[in-house]
Amino acid sequence: MEVRIVAPLTIKPEFVEEVTPALLAIVAASREELGCLQYDLHREIGSTNSFVFYERWRSEAAIDQHESSAHFQHFVSQLDGKLDKIEIKKMKVFA
Amino acid sequence: MEVRIVAPLTIKPEFVEEVTPALLAIVAASREELGCLQYDLHREIGSTNSFVFYERWRSEAAIDQHESSAHFQHFVSQLDGKLDKIEIKKMKVFA
Repeated sequence: MEVRIVAPLTIKPEFVEEVTPALLAIVAASREELGCLQYDLHREIGSTNSFVFYERWRSEAAIDQHESSAHFQHFVSQLDGKLDKIEIKKMKVFA
Repeated sequence: MEVRIVAPLTIKPEFVEEVTPALLAIVAASREELGCLQYDLHREIGSTNSFVFYERWRSEAAIDQHESSAHFQHFVSQLDGKLDKIEIKKMKVFA
């Protein structure tokens, strides 16, 4: 059963430029995963450091695989200490 | 240029059942709009009252038209006083 993720994150302004390559890399690598149906990164209009990931995965197992992947672990380490806020909501489609 | 919206909302628990028809109705009506590319409603796993709208619109003008539509205005009135929290993020695709 498909599982979706919305993850708003606020990057410390002084690190936005530095982490941008990591943001682009995780999008590219995640889209290559078999379990990934959609993996989009958005920036809030009028903001330079407010971003939102929107992801669709084939199953919970696909998410587990993603989260234990080398590229995701690397991404997490690259963001360490550089975020003001991050929230990860796992969701099912309601309508 | 496509504009996307993520809108997390938390409904007061005692009103979830009462507003569910309104949630379903706004999804159906919004998907009929010419400017609407995607209009999905999600419920957070493990929650009964935490929802997230994820929307894709052809343009800012399409959003303006949506927000001034009778069905959206009606929806807003149906939620009045029944939410703990709502946040609307207008976004552009970053990657």
